[in-house]
Amino acid sequence: MRILVVNPNTTASMTQTIAAAARAAAGPQTTIEAVTSCTGPASIEGYFDEALSVPGLLDLIREGERAGCDAAVIACFDDTGLDAARAMAAIPVLGICESALSLAACIAKRIAIVTTDERARIPIEELAIRYGMGSRVRVRVAGIPVLALEDPTSGASGRLRDEIRYALDHDHVEAIVLGCAGMADLAHRLQGEFGVPVIDGVGAAVKQAEALVALGLATSKRGAYAAPAPKRFSGTMAPFSTLAAEAV
Amino acid sequence: MRILVVNPNTTASMTQTIAAAARAAAGPQTTIEAVTSCTGPASIEGYFDEALSVPGLLDLIREGERAGCDAAVIACFDDTGLDAARAMAAIPVLGICESALSLAACIAKRIAIVTTDERARIPIEELAIRYGMGSRVRVRVAGIPVLALEDPTSGASGRLRDEIRYALDHDHVEAIVLGCAGMADLAHRLQGEFGVPVIDGVGAAVKQAEALVALGLATSKRGAYAAPAPKRFSGTMAPFSTLAAEAV
Amino acid sequence: MRILVVNPNTTASMTQTIAAAARAAAGPQTTIEAVTSCTGPASIEGYFDEALSVPGLLDLIREGERAGCDAAVIACFDDTGLDAARAMAAIPVLGICESALSLAACIAKRIAIVTTDERARIPIEELAIRYGMGSRVRVRVAGIPVLALEDPTSGASGRLRDEIRYALDHDHVEAIVLGCAGMADLAHRLQGEFGVPVIDGVGAAVKQAEALVALGLATSKRGAYAAPAPKRFSGTMAPFSTLAAEAV
Amino acid sequence: MRILVVNPNTTASMTQTIAAAARAAAGPQTTIEAVTSCTGPASIEGYFDEALSVPGLLDLIREGERAGCDAAVIACFDDTGLDAARAMAAIPVLGICESALSLAACIAKRIAIVTTDERARIPIEELAIRYGMGSRVRVRVAGIPVLALEDPTSGASGRLRDEIRYALDHDHVEAIVLGCAGMADLAHRLQGEFGVPVIDGVGAAVKQAEALVALGLATSKRGAYAAPAPKRFSGTMAPFSTLAAEAV
Amino acid sequence: MRILVVNPNTTASMTQTIAAAARAAAGPQTTIEAVTSCTGPASIEGYFDEALSVPGLLDLIREGERAGCDAAVIACFDDTGLDAARAMAAIPVLGICESALSLAACIAKRIAIVTTDERARIPIEELAIRYGMGSRVRVRVAGIPVLALEDPTSGASGRLRDEIRYALDHDHVEAIVLGCAGMADLAHRLQGEFGVPVIDGVGAAVKQAEALVALGLATSKRGAYAAPAPKRFSGTMAPFSTLAAEAV
Amino acid sequence: MRILVVNPNTTASMTQTIAAAARAAAGPQTTIEAVTSCTGPASIEGYFDEALSVPGLLDLIREGERAGCDAAVIACFDDTGLDAARAMAAIPVLGICESALSLAACIAKRIAIVTTDERARIPIEELAIRYGMGSRVRVRVAGIPVLALEDPTSGASGRLRDEIRYALDHDHVEAIVLGCAGMADLAHRLQGEFGVPVIDGVGAAVKQAEALVALGLATSKRGAYAAPAPKRFSGTMAPFSTLAAEAV
Repeated sequence: MRILVVNPNTTASMTQTIAAAARAAAGPQTTIEAVTSCTGPASIEGYFDEALSVPGLLDLIREGERAGCDAAVIACFDDTGLDAARAMAAIPVLGICESALSLAACIAKRIAIVTTDERARIPIEELAIRYGMGSRVRVRVAGIPVLALEDPTSGASGRLRDEIRYALDHDHVEAIVLGCAGMADLAHRLQGEFGVPVIDGVGAAVKQAEALVALGLATSKRGAYAAPAPKRFSGTMAPFSTLAAEAV
Repeated sequence: MRILVVNPNTTASMTQTIAAAARAAAGPQTTIEAVTSCTGPASIEGYFDEALSVPGLLDLIREGERAGCDAAVIACFDDTGLDAARAMAAIPVLGICESALSLAACIAKRIAIVTTDERARIPIEELAIRYGMGSRVRVRVAGIPVLALEDPTSGASGRLRDEIRYALDHDHVEAIVLGCAGMADLAHRLQGEFGVPVIDGVGAAVKQAEALVALGLATSKRGAYAAPAPKRFSGTMAPFSTLAAEAV
Repeated sequence: MRILVVNPNTTASMTQTIAAAARAAAGPQTTIEAVTSCTGPASIEGYFDEALSVPGLLDLIREGERAGCDAAVIACFDDTGLDAARAMAAIPVLGICESALSLAACIAKRIAIVTTDERARIPIEELAIRYGMGSRVRVRVAGIPVLALEDPTSGASGRLRDEIRYALDHDHVEAIVLGCAGMADLAHRLQGEFGVPVIDGVGAAVKQAEALVALGLATSKRGAYAAPAPKRFSGTMAPFSTLAAEAV
Repeated sequence: MRILVVNPNTTASMTQTIAAAARAAAGPQTTIEAVTSCTGPASIEGYFDEALSVPGLLDLIREGERAGCDAAVIACFDDTGLDAARAMAAIPVLGICESALSLAACIAKRIAIVTTDERARIPIEELAIRYGMGSRVRVRVAGIPVLALEDPTSGASGRLRDEIRYALDHDHVEAIVLGCAGMADLAHRLQGEFGVPVIDGVGAAVKQAEALVALGLATSKRGAYAAPAPKRFSGTMAPFSTLAAEAV
Repeated sequence: MRILVVNPNTTASMTQTIAAAARAAAGPQTTIEAVTSCTGPASIEGYFDEALSVPGLLDLIREGERAGCDAAVIACFDDTGLDAARAMAAIPVLGICESALSLAACIAKRIAIVTTDERARIPIEELAIRYGMGSRVRVRVAGIPVLALEDPTSGASGRLRDEIRYALDHDHVEAIVLGCAGMADLAHRLQGEFGVPVIDGVGAAVKQAEALVALGLATSKRGAYAAPAPKRFSGTMAPFSTLAAEAV
Repeated sequence: MRILVVNPNTTASMTQTIAAAARAAAGPQTTIEAVTSCTGPASIEGYFDEALSVPGLLDLIREGERAGCDAAVIACFDDTGLDAARAMAAIPVLGICESALSLAACIAKRIAIVTTDERARIPIEELAIRYGMGSRVRVRVAGIPVLALEDPTSGASGRLRDEIRYALDHDHVEAIVLGCAGMADLAHRLQGEFGVPVIDGVGAAVKQAEALVALGLATSKRGAYAAPAPKRFSGTMAPFSTLAAEAV
């Protein structure tokens, strides 16, 4: 089984962190193909960055699907472009926020999502509501740039721990979800430190992808995720014309 | 006052319909600047088309803002790219679904949205829920391609009327919202035929835009719509690097 | 275009504040006709005052409609009598809470409503829920009588500012809605002071009224807002008998 | 124990039906004092009638409380004026929709409310949502004027039965709530005919009133139901000035 | 009228407290038959204890029904086994959380439930949501074992009062619901101390039971509470085989 | 990895169906240990049967955990006893309704659950609401006893297909979830016949269990799922005393 893991930002070092977490989670018969987008922002912080990363990630998923991948994971906690990718692709596509919450819901009633930038607070709260977890989730923001997670001298890690501690002490949460793909390497250590489950979405999504493929399940092509109607795309989006035609 | 009205699909004839509706709605001191995207799909039917129209429309709003427009309207009923545009721009940005529902809510309790393609049903239901109108809205789908609205021989208009009639007879609705920018010319006639309010989102959004500008209100730059953090954009998105830098 | 603005309490000096805000918001071709109720409480603080102000305001709206007004605004933040007025009148009727939230929703995700008396907290929270904004709104109460807003020595203005500051610092809000018609004169100044959008409902409702009239939209007379069935009214309500008969 | 039962419309014959149902429900030590409003509409069908019946019913509750009644019931299924009455009075005040749903919820999961006039459909659905029962309630409208319930030749009773039958056959409901005080005499017979619980709100509210009084519980005078602030009432509402002063 | 009050834990001294509260609430023609379970945990703190107390309480309700009781009350605030008991029995069955919230909702808008053990926080919040009161209820946990309520030297009573005080000062609550059957004796005293309504669920449920019986209402046997299908039960559950057969 | 799959009814032949589905879903390094309860009902249809199956299934999970199983699956679509099992056990425990919906949500927006007995309709709708999927799920009932699924002459399979067809034609659903563990063998065939994803909860839960174990995640022992407080259990529940003591 080959699972494509797309880092929809253009920072290759973050793809390394993501790929390592994906491989650690994957089963022995799964190959992880981790790719970095070359179209869009260097990190994804809020609605604007999100939107501009979508064509790049769709392109990568289209290529991955053609190359025979069995499923795809979008490794950004905002689940950027997830619905569009599901409509486009025949293979299953997973989001790391949705997958993390789905596993967290099986082991805890109330959950804190700890994220980086203030711009991400409400997009993540909206996701929790959309996934039916609005009343069970508390979002806490560490106030750090996404890329600071890669810099050990940034103090980012201390800020994260402060927010986890606060959530445990004041919000009655029972588990922690890491609200950024760039934190994927921290789950194990933080779980040890805090003594509660700490869930990384990259690993969670890889397992959901494996599950769907193993069970012979793919995205429904009826209704909201029906294949795109064939039509002309213009400008820098022209390459997608072919795909829409093929999708019929 | 200058209001930019962006047709985020690339079909210029639809922009004509939209522009006419916008001008009919605009006050005497408002200039409507209607533009057609040159980047993305020829029509927007579902999540995939939506996502690929966003960079093009953001580009147009950025240009419009630089050229001195006071507000922008995104003329696609899926409110495509709305949050991203609000985060990017300093001027107010309006979506036609949100605006239509906001006015409809002042004159009716239960509302039917009549739309075109089956792929749009659930995205529109999700919007209604996000805008807090989930229990008041019923979505009805005419099963016609968006561009068939432009072809008088397509039977599209009859299909629309059938759905309106059905909604009035079975769903206890009290007003109709036209669920596609391409229907903007039909509101007045259908209102006469069916004897209930028929709301077109393009006109509604132009009036909301005028309202915000007149009241001196612009998008909050705190929290979810804070200006994008400056960062590098790559590939076909590279032009947005400048903007993100300026936004600081 | 003539817009009737009804102050449903009997304090004429508050009508002056409201009328000034309405006129400042109105377009050049709009005439504001501001009237003060002569039936009911001197200020509206909670459910009891609300209920007793309704017959007086319905009477004024009926008269205004007969005199040719094109729309009506009820200038009390509790949206007192709004549904009854919409059922009674053929012209559009706007509430200032609904209008304020509707504009606020276009420029911010999370919104604080700052109001006066503790009795108003839950009625306003209930309105936010009814308008589908329950999860986006935080209500803060300054603990001041409504009429203290008119007395510069009362300290009311300082209490308001304290609550706004608190909401910005602790509730992650991005915009402020003024939760009382008597605050209508403060929006501009507070917006300058706090650097976030500050929305006054009187201005917002005037613009919504202008929008509906310009678009040829009036309250649906089907379903919940159908004209009242003709019937006898007794006692001090007897004058409404005629109206119900006419409404048929 | 003395329970005041207010018919907030001015039709005395309907008060007889209500009083009989109240007495049949009351315990042996309870006296029912049934009164008819002399201020307002002859029947209550929709928001407009509702609003104009409130001052009359508040007046009657105020008098009843002064005369020593221990609790009050508002016998209109729209729970007209309920919040205002609770803020005004020190004794408990019950609404028949709230009480009926509260008992129905203990004996059935899904409940049909069968009511009279189309104008009442959405007000009742809104009540069900406000009382937290939105997903459990289905409203069915018989399309009959309220006062037709008093005329055996009107066919009203047949229309009601048709709607009950439809609800049982198509909506998976398990119990029926009678959605108008004027139906109070039908509960027992319909329960026999249809073999499911049929709940009349008048009886339900009398029992809730007895329960609160027996348990020494009265409306909280903190927050939303705090006694009205003393203030001047003008015009036909002037008599309420005294009350507001006393309430302090 | 005979009302069975089941203490579903095995601590007979707590049954005494419960029985006293039930008798104090009951009308003069009601006999309270208070019984203690002999199967299950000594106290009920969280999901595990709840589940294991259900067969014991079902057994007692079955016996009580056979012996001619007219209604049953389950005296555990988690409303343990309530749906199962309603499906099993022909007589009405009441839960003390549901009944307490139902009465509280008639006299206050916002309500605090004060409970004992941290394990009960989320089960009670889930109940409030299920009963449609999620947005009106705040749960506060005193951090005491249930059985400490019976020990005057445990400090439990002081902890409870601390939480009530906190809820009144910080959560804008207007009434208090006692979140454990073992607190049933405290309602009257706490109401005097804090000056707001304090509701004990045991008394509330007894009154709801009296109401249903007096009105001739019993659990619907259609749909979710239909009598159990006859089938074989094995092991320690074998005695229930008979009952399921009889229920047809 | 060893996964315990508990059939909480006492019908061993159904355990065979369940075990086969579990094994088909399990990875190559997973051992499925399928067990049949010997305490409780022969099939689970509604709240009553559910409640009486819980002690038996808890017992089996306790034994399985002691014997070294790494996770447990409760193979009844009502997710019977799930919260109690999670509080009791240290290993992860999965429910088949929760797991099925969790995977279905990744491949479809709107989902039909097709189940057997009318008694299960509302319990399953309540689960969908609890899992945050209320607006996305439609429940359809085939009107067949659970055990009829095992009898090829019962017509059960035809009834199921009728409901699936109806849901696809009228409810705009995009995927089917099989609402009973006894249908686990049908998923593959029905998916082929209807051309939409058909999800069986047994397979889904096995994959979720493998995912949690592989990721090193177990149920949080903080808050709602904290280990049971040690206490005495009486009567037929006495064996659980030990466990509660050990859990500390």
